[in-house]
Amino acid sequence: MADSTRTPERRYGTRPTMKDVAARAGVGLKTVSRVVNGEPGVTPDTVQRVRNAIEALGFRRNDSARILRKGRTASIGLVLEDLADPFYGPLSRAVEEAARAHGALLIHGSSAEDPERERELVLAFCARRVDGLIVVPAGDDHRYLEPEIAAGIATVFVDRPPGLLDADVVLTDSYAGAREGVAHLIAHGHRRIGFIGDLPRIHTARERLRGYRAAMAGAGLPVDEAWVSLGPTDPARVRAAARAMLDGARPVTALFSANNRVTVTAVRELSGRTRPVALVGFDDFELADLLDPGVTVIAQDAAQLGRTAADRLFRRLDGADDPPEVTTLPTRLIPRGSGELPPS
Amino acid sequence: MADSTRTPERRYGTRPTMKDVAARAGVGLKTVSRVVNGEPGVTPDTVQRVRNAIEALGFRRNDSARILRKGRTASIGLVLEDLADPFYGPLSRAVEEAARAHGALLIHGSSAEDPERERELVLAFCARRVDGLIVVPAGDDHRYLEPEIAAGIATVFVDRPPGLLDADVVLTDSYAGAREGVAHLIAHGHRRIGFIGDLPRIHTARERLRGYRAAMAGAGLPVDEAWVSLGPTDPARVRAAARAMLDGARPVTALFSANNRVTVTAVRELSGRTRPVALVGFDDFELADLLDPGVTVIAQDAAQLGRTAADRLFRRLDGADDPPEVTTLPTRLIPRGSGELPPS
Repeated sequence: MADSTRTPERRYGTRPTMKDVAARAGVGLKTVSRVVNGEPGVTPDTVQRVRNAIEALGFRRNDSARILRKGRTASIGLVLEDLADPFYGPLSRAVEEAARAHGALLIHGSSAEDPERERELVLAFCARRVDGLIVVPAGDDHRYLEPEIAAGIATVFVDRPPGLLDADVVLTDSYAGAREGVAHLIAHGHRRIGFIGDLPRIHTARERLRGYRAAMAGAGLPVDEAWVSLGPTDPARVRAAARAMLDGARPVTALFSANNRVTVTAVRELSGRTRPVALVGFDDFELADLLDPGVTVIAQDAAQLGRTAADRLFRRLDGADDPPEVTTLPTRLIPRGSGELPPS
Repeated sequence: MADSTRTPERRYGTRPTMKDVAARAGVGLKTVSRVVNGEPGVTPDTVQRVRNAIEALGFRRNDSARILRKGRTASIGLVLEDLADPFYGPLSRAVEEAARAHGALLIHGSSAEDPERERELVLAFCARRVDGLIVVPAGDDHRYLEPEIAAGIATVFVDRPPGLLDADVVLTDSYAGAREGVAHLIAHGHRRIGFIGDLPRIHTARERLRGYRAAMAGAGLPVDEAWVSLGPTDPARVRAAARAMLDGARPVTALFSANNRVTVTAVRELSGRTRPVALVGFDDFELADLLDPGVTVIAQDAAQLGRTAADRLFRRLDGADDPPEVTTLPTRLIPRGSGELPPS
């Protein structure tokens, strides 16, 4: 009969509800519910009528509502700084693979390094009852998450620690990595070394600067404050900082670029110069080995950060209630040429 | 009083429900609902008791449930091929910015080029009542989406068209772009040109191959089938394909690499060779200009693809019900050196 042909009134409309199905089938809501949930007590004829109505309306059982009743949405929220930063690609993929292995969906958002936007995203995710959160924090006060965590939303921070909140966190050892990179430049004869990093309110930027200072101090080398520049990683700022250090009164002979965004711009600036300048960058990046010279980096394992954070999160979701833990992953120096240039 | 102090029983538990609040406040469920929804008919004393219970339990009103009642989840699902492929970074970010401008959340997933996984993700998103979907399809039969679209889930395909389904789609002109890239190599004197592309079931791979053949035919050049290789983009396969073409009986003097994953491996393979081989790649990539030689590419605007798809989606969500449309964006040739090398 005509009822079995799907004839939606319009292409993009509001989803049909169980009520619509009941009206079309000429039965009560309870009957539709029984059919949808495979419960007994409905005659075969009526089952068929309801099924025809379901088919005709394109009705789909509302899984979200069912999951809400069970108290589990099987989804996790991931808040990053920037979806387009290649550093976060392997991290996101690792989290996604873990979520998939646990049958959970991934909800994604970028804070754009804006603490207010981070908060909005996190709370929007919580309001949608994610089971857990993995957050690369932009802000430095995460007390707003206390009620959410208390209410059962497992939360793991990654890449940077939370502020004013006791929670699980997975970090790379930025301090030791930067110290090793700068010590590497010193071992190759450099005495005047510039440091270009991210915004000073970002934990990793501060830690890497601390590593730079420790390496310089460890070698008995003074630091001219003109050699240190923290700020946004946009190319114009980084280029200006590099130029000031390279063309100043006491020009540096080497640069330590404290993340992949800075390194890419530093490479561009140095490629236009005749005097060779040594360079070590924090974070590895694609094709770093094919540049001339190859770019020496302090590599962190972004995929391992994501995997570790996801493992921690799912252990929490499985009921682990030991105190929050800080996990720190090591870095790895990869010499490729740019960090082994002697002072000119 | 003690009730106003938050004392959750455990750190990671199940979320408290309205029923828990009712039990703690010693009132009925309807009363809690009235307080939560700001409805009249509750005495100030009782309101205070309910509020204390809410605070003590860390209860949060269930926005998802409220939104479900309104029939709008204010979220869109984005299904990509691989979160870690740099091509999708700007595309994702553009979609996220558009979603944010419309107050919608972004749910993200990767198909890993697996049609079954694409289908699972899409249906999981639908079951969670996303308002709309943006899909980079992995499969070639999307009839499974018909009931969802009929039920009101706006769907836009991007980068590749859907199979057996009439829907909005935003593409790059792969055919014209590849034809221009290969014609560029021919204009620089090449007659034997290799083509290395993605899996033949991927629309863009087929379109780019079609462009290659059209350029060769347009110049009256025969194509030796040993010069054409389609397959997965993993480095081992691409390297083997390049070697076979470069070291074969009729070695090619130029390569056209049909996406950024292929190009990066082709650059690696060519960097180890003494005989110069010309190269044009489809897709721009970071640092392409700093390699030696710089890599000539056919650039597509991934951010514009994302923006256009999102604009289309939100127009649909605003009620536009004109027939599905195919939008094709142009490519841009960027000569940087590798594509201008003469045959050796």
